[in-house]
Amino acid sequence: MDDPAALLEPFLLPARIERLREAARQRTRNLRVVLDGVHDPHNLSAAVRSCDGFGVLELHVIESAKPFRVRRKVSQGTEKWIRIHRHPSPLEAVAALRAEGFELWVADPRPGGRPVDDLPWEKKLALVFGNEKDGASRETSQAAAGFFCIPMYGFGDSFNVSVAAGVALAVAVRERLRRLGRHGDLSAAEQEELIAEWMRRAVKNADRILTHLATRGSADHEPSDEPLEE
Amino acid sequence: MDDPAALLEPFLLPARIERLREAARQRTRNLRVVLDGVHDPHNLSAAVRSCDGFGVLELHVIESAKPFRVRRKVSQGTEKWIRIHRHPSPLEAVAALRAEGFELWVADPRPGGRPVDDLPWEKKLALVFGNEKDGASRETSQAAAGFFCIPMYGFGDSFNVSVAAGVALAVAVRERLRRLGRHGDLSAAEQEELIAEWMRRAVKNADRILTHLATRGSADHEPSDEPLEE
Repeated sequence: MDDPAALLEPFLLPARIERLREAARQRTRNLRVVLDGVHDPHNLSAAVRSCDGFGVLELHVIESAKPFRVRRKVSQGTEKWIRIHRHPSPLEAVAALRAEGFELWVADPRPGGRPVDDLPWEKKLALVFGNEKDGASRETSQAAAGFFCIPMYGFGDSFNVSVAAGVALAVAVRERLRRLGRHGDLSAAEQEELIAEWMRRAVKNADRILTHLATRGSADHEPSDEPLEE
Repeated sequence: MDDPAALLEPFLLPARIERLREAARQRTRNLRVVLDGVHDPHNLSAAVRSCDGFGVLELHVIESAKPFRVRRKVSQGTEKWIRIHRHPSPLEAVAALRAEGFELWVADPRPGGRPVDDLPWEKKLALVFGNEKDGASRETSQAAAGFFCIPMYGFGDSFNVSVAAGVALAVAVRERLRRLGRHGDLSAAEQEELIAEWMRRAVKNADRILTHLATRGSADHEPSDEPLEE
């Protein structure tokens, strides 16, 4: 069987395919966002949208507060373009990230944290954002390499969690570009795999089409005139 | 009559007074945030909190969508420490800001905007953030010196409005420090005035105390043991 990307390509406009390729080039897997018990759906959804916008492919959600649900009005459907890993507890998230060689850094506005600009951005970093009221869990904090803060000039004790995540990711992009010369870090093979995954999401009824082509062979299949993109 | 700050000083702990002074030193009046028809209370409240955290003293709210109301769970009460100007329409906000010599720059993710890092941060800037759905109003856009964007790497068309404001303000602080050497820009007299304003908000029943002192004279007044700060 041909690879799914090649089979689905005729169902997408060339400009659309170029956009998928460009986004895949700009995606990073070496920078992760971890939402540790964040429970406000608005904050979760805005963080999803920021991951997409800042090129973060993989988001980890620790569902200790409640199950992760996206509010599409806020996320604008961007959850389609990132990979979301759900973890039932902090320890499971920590184990998964450590197994992949990530250093955890926990956002914490209290004094003593490292300013966000000075994080070791050239490493594989997982940025942890905790619950709106109590911060990150004890387990995640204990497993972390350290805490980081966004310097504050006023009276509030912290920023809104989705704002903090957005600011940290903006810094991440800037520092990664400055120190590493690039933000995207997927290998050619990983990019191809991701593009195939995205095509399946971009083409309406992609799985049905792929099954059809696999059984009948692709040569005799003609794309129909129906609108096929979602 | 003595000045209110001197009269209220005995009712505050020295550490608290020092915090007010430090925050006043870090406040800017030359950078404004304008919320132009933003209607989601979560976004409004997170933007208020970001203004406080990034030292922006004055926030302009254009109430064309609906009246401005803060959600305290999100703002964390930070509305107490900034000055909020309400404008019934975009034109009134534009007139007020122009009269004070501000250049308006509108956040707009569409191609062609100036990247946020490159704004003329050494000038008096008003950053305009528009409605979640339709962006900034026509009137504000027409009055603007230009549009700015936060570079994006994904599929979404924009960031959540409170995230965009937070990212832009973080850049503002960094660039103002780099280019001007300082972020806070209130004169000594403006700082004193602001501290007096804040003391009135920090001391419980401040106005009653001031009236009392004004009629009886301050010499025979002893601060009570009651907790006086809110």
